Amino acid sequence: MGDESNCSMNMEEEVQGVEERDPESNTNTNNTPNPLHEPLLKRNRTLSSNPLALVGAKVSYIESLDYEINENDLFKQDWRTRSRAQVLQYIFLKWSLAFLVGLLTGVIATLINLAIENIAGYKLLAVVQYIHKERYMAGFLYFTGVNFLLTFVAAILCVCFAPTAAGPGIPEIKAYLNGVDTPNMYGATTLFVKIIGSIGAVAAGLDLGKEGPLVHIGSCIASLLGQGGPDNYRIKWRWLRYFNNDRDRRDLITCGASSGVCAAFRAPVGGVLFALEEVATWWRSALLWRTFFSTAVVVVILRAFIELCHEGKCGLFGEGGLIMFDVSNVSVSYHVMDIIPVALIGVIGGVLGSLYNHVLHKVLRLYNLINQKGKIYKLLLSLSVALFTSACQYGLPFLAKCSPCDPSLPKSICPTNGRSGNYKQFNCPDGHYNDLATLLLTTNDDAVRNIFSSNTPNEFQPSSILIFFALYCILGLVTFGIAVPSGLFLPIILMGSGYGRLLAMLMGPHTNIDHGLFAVLGAASLMAGSMRMTVSLCVIFLELTNNLLLLPITMFVLLIAKTVGDSFNPSIYEIILHLKGLPFMDSNPEPWMRNLTVGELVDVKPAVVTLRGVEKVCNIVEALRNTTHNGFPVVDDGVVPPTRLVTEARELHGMILRAHLIQVLKKRWFLKEARRREEWEVREKFTWVELAEREGKIEEVAITRDEMEMYVDLHPLTNTTPFTVLESMSVAKAMVLFRQVGLRHLLVVPKYQASGVSPVIGILTRQDLLAHNILSVFPHLAKSKKRN
Amino acid sequence: MGDESNCSMNMEEEVQGVEERDPESNTNTNNTPNPLHEPLLKRNRTLSSNPLALVGAKVSYIESLDYEINENDLFKQDWRTRSRAQVLQYIFLKWSLAFLVGLLTGVIATLINLAIENIAGYKLLAVVQYIHKERYMAGFLYFTGVNFLLTFVAAILCVCFAPTAAGPGIPEIKAYLNGVDTPNMYGATTLFVKIIGSIGAVAAGLDLGKEGPLVHIGSCIASLLGQGGPDNYRIKWRWLRYFNNDRDRRDLITCGASSGVCAAFRAPVGGVLFALEEVATWWRSALLWRTFFSTAVVVVILRAFIELCHEGKCGLFGEGGLIMFDVSNVSVSYHVMDIIPVALIGVIGGVLGSLYNHVLHKVLRLYNLINQKGKIYKLLLSLSVALFTSACQYGLPFLAKCSPCDPSLPKSICPTNGRSGNYKQFNCPDGHYNDLATLLLTTNDDAVRNIFSSNTPNEFQPSSILIFFALYCILGLVTFGIAVPSGLFLPIILMGSGYGRLLAMLMGPHTNIDHGLFAVLGAASLMAGSMRMTVSLCVIFLELTNNLLLLPITMFVLLIAKTVGDSFNPSIYEIILHLKGLPFMDSNPEPWMRNLTVGELVDVKPAVVTLRGVEKVCNIVEALRNTTHNGFPVVDDGVVPPTRLVTEARELHGMILRAHLIQVLKKRWFLKEARRREEWEVREKFTWVELAEREGKIEEVAITRDEMEMYVDLHPLTNTTPFTVLESMSVAKAMVLFRQVGLRHLLVVPKYQASGVSPVIGILTRQDLLAHNILSVFPHLAKSKKRN
Repeated sequence: MGDESNCSMNMEEEVQGVEERDPESNTNTNNTPNPLHEPLLKRNRTLSSNPLALVGAKVSYIESLDYEINENDLFKQDWRTRSRAQVLQYIFLKWSLAFLVGLLTGVIATLINLAIENIAGYKLLAVVQYIHKERYMAGFLYFTGVNFLLTFVAAILCVCFAPTAAGPGIPEIKAYLNGVDTPNMYGATTLFVKIIGSIGAVAAGLDLGKEGPLVHIGSCIASLLGQGGPDNYRIKWRWLRYFNNDRDRRDLITCGASSGVCAAFRAPVGGVLFALEEVATWWRSALLWRTFFSTAVVVVILRAFIELCHEGKCGLFGEGGLIMFDVSNVSVSYHVMDIIPVALIGVIGGVLGSLYNHVLHKVLRLYNLINQKGKIYKLLLSLSVALFTSACQYGLPFLAKCSPCDPSLPKSICPTNGRSGNYKQFNCPDGHYNDLATLLLTTNDDAVRNIFSSNTPNEFQPSSILIFFALYCILGLVTFGIAVPSGLFLPIILMGSGYGRLLAMLMGPHTNIDHGLFAVLGAASLMAGSMRMTVSLCVIFLELTNNLLLLPITMFVLLIAKTVGDSFNPSIYEIILHLKGLPFMDSNPEPWMRNLTVGELVDVKPAVVTLRGVEKVCNIVEALRNTTHNGFPVVDDGVVPPTRLVTEARELHGMILRAHLIQVLKKRWFLKEARRREEWEVREKFTWVELAEREGKIEEVAITRDEMEMYVDLHPLTNTTPFTVLESMSVAKAMVLFRQVGLRHLLVVPKYQASGVSPVIGILTRQDLLAHNILSVFPHLAKSKKRN
Repeated sequence: MGDESNCSMNMEEEVQGVEERDPESNTNTNNTPNPLHEPLLKRNRTLSSNPLALVGAKVSYIESLDYEINENDLFKQDWRTRSRAQVLQYIFLKWSLAFLVGLLTGVIATLINLAIENIAGYKLLAVVQYIHKERYMAGFLYFTGVNFLLTFVAAILCVCFAPTAAGPGIPEIKAYLNGVDTPNMYGATTLFVKIIGSIGAVAAGLDLGKEGPLVHIGSCIASLLGQGGPDNYRIKWRWLRYFNNDRDRRDLITCGASSGVCAAFRAPVGGVLFALEEVATWWRSALLWRTFFSTAVVVVILRAFIELCHEGKCGLFGEGGLIMFDVSNVSVSYHVMDIIPVALIGVIGGVLGSLYNHVLHKVLRLYNLINQKGKIYKLLLSLSVALFTSACQYGLPFLAKCSPCDPSLPKSICPTNGRSGNYKQFNCPDGHYNDLATLLLTTNDDAVRNIFSSNTPNEFQPSSILIFFALYCILGLVTFGIAVPSGLFLPIILMGSGYGRLLAMLMGPHTNIDHGLFAVLGAASLMAGSMRMTVSLCVIFLELTNNLLLLPITMFVLLIAKTVGDSFNPSIYEIILHLKGLPFMDSNPEPWMRNLTVGELVDVKPAVVTLRGVEKVCNIVEALRNTTHNGFPVVDDGVVPPTRLVTEARELHGMILRAHLIQVLKKRWFLKEARRREEWEVREKFTWVELAEREGKIEEVAITRDEMEMYVDLHPLTNTTPFTVLESMSVAKAMVLFRQVGLRHLLVVPKYQASGVSPVIGILTRQDLLAHNILSVFPHLAKSKKRN
């Protein structure tokens, strides 16, 4: 504290110090900031070195979230004075928000369904009319035109207003819950574009689902509710202030994601499990319960709407309705011998699923190259896919032969020209139906329902199913990466059900299992082979098919398919995460991480920038200007420990966040002389709510030359309880700690105790602990990895 | 290392040092062990100060489990040299064990069911014969005698051979997965007694279920498989050596617990969720999948047995069979207005559930006092409860009026004298049935099935249901604590279903919901009110009732009942955990823990006992003899850090476990002079497998006077990567770290850096972080707790 030297002089020394620095010996950490500071080890390397960011995810600075509780004086003060009433208020609000998330997600999901069913329904009815009048060309033009228009609306919104709304959004949510904040992901614009875009894209008959987007919509709603509205029109309720932190927002977004899955599949338990198995990184029993509450609300809302729309009050909605493949009337009479065909479904499904992941990866890389050329290319790509899809859906049924209706079926069922139905007449004479039109010239939901239908082994011709399967393989690969909101569930279900039926036909007399059940199992196996979920998929299928006796057989297929898939490549979500360059932290450390200590890791990083407890303003400004660090250790020199038998020591007081330093500078909370502040001085100037804000850049703060020479007491704003590891800690264990406790910064302290040693020798962040980044610095570890 | 002073001299100095020690200033940690060392702060206080240990759980030393990976040189060596084949072997074995756990649990569960159904069935048939011949007294004597005998067998086994087999075992499993090892919990004797005892107790018609015991049985099987058999007859396969650690055993026991629930309810997803929500403390996605695999195997086994027994090949099994309350034929026609009666079920269920918890707590305390008087008292208590139960079950039906059979029912159904059935004739004339006998004079499973039966609003008289409800309230309270294996699920379901039917009758015309459905919802509400599970209960009920449309209504009831219950007292499992004095670590720290630092906590503890890297044998022996610590920090004096700018420092090298020190002494791995060992010297003497053993006591090791003066190099066996916190860390955050990462010891390091400071100032264990123990030392915190 006695160091009154000029800042700029310090700087010069520092420059020298850095340039001379031996990478192996940067323990001479100065308390003055390091002006030539590079970003932390390979910080953003993943992002900047990886040009393959997907559509919608612009290459931009991705921040870590503060899931750790910042225990500074102000927080402790606020914590102590929180009354019982305020705690109850907080709990009440938490539950109300969970209720609102469920309510709004349910309502919006119903409205989306309503819009899609009506738009697509009237479109299809009109097309049927044209065909009935044998005006095939006009029908084609009408069908293609409407689809083109719908796709155009969806794509132009995505491209121009909210690029983050493209795709399913599930990987980004997964990353968010892991601690990575993708910018512009949960805004009001994104929500709006996602809703409209999803309606447009699904109604246009593209090979994509509304399931992924619904998960994103649920999360957006949750995030917006938690922060009190869109950025510019926030409600600044006193109540809501408790939610202005990353921890509570994480919980809310988990609720939102579960509600979204629940709304998509009407599967409340499946929704909770999906969030648990696939999306969330941290989980508490209390959260399980709240998530469950949200999904319960969604189910009640959906049920209420279905009752409301039951009597045709909602246009064409309610006829097709929410997807619910009720196969509960299938006679599930499988025996021990059926285990062989079922195992076969699983094995082939696993292979196909991982193959799909592999090829989709290549396609997405190609699409990224196209999309990066500009907005117009993005738009053109989407529209070409839409044209191709429409042409195939309309044109291919003409290839199929007309089949005569089963005489036992009533005439109202076969053939039909209505909105939905299993036996579409299309271009066939009366009393005949076109099986391919039943599958193609309909909404995706209806297609799934038709192909899942039970007791209809002879309904579809093998050639039709083959065409269906081949078409949806191609469409599933080319559609996903275009700039519209798109889910992965439905394309994979479509592909899988085609594969299942095909397999059933190939098996022929060797099995007694119903063809519809084969389709269900095929879909399940492909989902497991591509997405690698087990429990949640199983429950979703259980809730979809409404047949508990299918459970053991579904479990069996899922387990086999996942095992087979895992032996080839990672799950599709992991592939997308990697493609987007999101620094996702895996749950299991790599084996070679046990052979590396965090000490070795911080040694290859630039020296850590520390601040003194009572620091000169100029030093703070320099630290902020010259580094991109978000946290700085606060070290006190020459203190006398109260009860220790030493006369002088250096103390690691804690960690201070960049955001808080900027607040200090903005508020000009300076001191003429170097002294400690009293507690009331802090409370007078700062509130707990202000400190939760992260906005503000150092460039926006102007400090005069006089102010530069003043002092700031950082103690009251310092988090005095940062998590630390010894330098001898292995990277594997440090990573487990980092992930399990949900950290943003991890301080490395020396294992030596001596008078000359700095009490902190480095900071590790998420980027430093990523396997990919470590390997780029320690390439020999990759070899040992391979050797094993 | 230059300190060659005599050990006994050191001791004397130490004695003085300790007595003069100011509790606020114990930083002068000596490297020599502290002979007058008390156990760590209040260690075992919970256990020894709490006389209320439940039946079966003897008051004994409870150890923490080592879930942390002990990264010493030997482990690292083993890790590096593990070949790819070995890794695959390990993975394969992991899955095989999960398979075997499911298989054996399924088979044993079926055998238990088979035995119970046959014993109870033939007993009941004989009683019916006596009654038919109007030999009421003989029937009573027969019924009571058989029940007495069965209970005697169950109780004598429990009392004499395996006291830990009494009760459900779920709280102990919950504690195990939290890191607390209850002794004799997973042995072969316990397993055997649990199986036979469970058959006896359930067949005796006591008001208890086989569900809890099945969970314990599954866990026992898993534990025995993991360690290769019972303690005395272990298979010492090379393969199995990888599983000789607490981490893998934890995973296996989780699989076992899920399999048990699955076998009990035939609810695979419910089993997984039960383990996840109620039992497990840590959870990984990979474990979710393996658990799911185990439960899938169980379901297949159960299904195979049911097919096998379908044609009466298994005696009376198959008629009653596994419990499966199929209410899928109930017309679930509830509307928005039905929300009021349903909410009422939830509210009253929540109140009743928490009331049950409260009274059961009192009863268990009373029982503990009785049971502590000796084995004979335990036995007498069990037998009196059995006599009371039999007398009530046989006598009370005589109070009920006979009801005429519904003429629309076929004569084979009403009245019946068979094994099961909804309309028992009992003492009634032909064409009449006794509704109370239908509920009481039957197995518990059948009673539940009868009371859940749908479309039978007039089957039961209100007086009968009232008697049923009152009786099972009393039985549910008095039966649970006796010395036989007993589950809590079924008693609560019985009570709840009675309450539900009663409420339905009281509502009368105000609701259209079926009375059977009311019974189901009543059971669910009481379960939620007492056990406080939501998602898993919901799924179990879903799988039990085989009716998906019940889901929203069940969720609603569960949420309300849990909320109401939580506002009164903790869940029944938490109450039992507390009664047993198991040091369970809650997921949420208490609010006042933020105001206490770990530094303050270690200050009130005796000074930490550290060892030097190369230590004299006598010092090690003394440290082991005079303390009960299970871990000792290893500190090196006067080392020169390789790249630091200081000349001499003290280094915190790591932590060594008591078990490893004893191994060193047993193997006499001594050095004549103080020097460091080479790596090959360690590998020559120790294997990784040996170090996983925890057996051995210091008293068993005899060291000669000459050996006492020799040295040991502790470096190779020291875990060099212990988790540490700074002394300024708050207890709340330390607790989160301790629980999340699964620690046994947490080292506290100084925040000061100076030459005189010891690099470690304390160790925290599970006991030190328990709220109850901290409050006994810092009573003022309890006040601040209340003030809030």
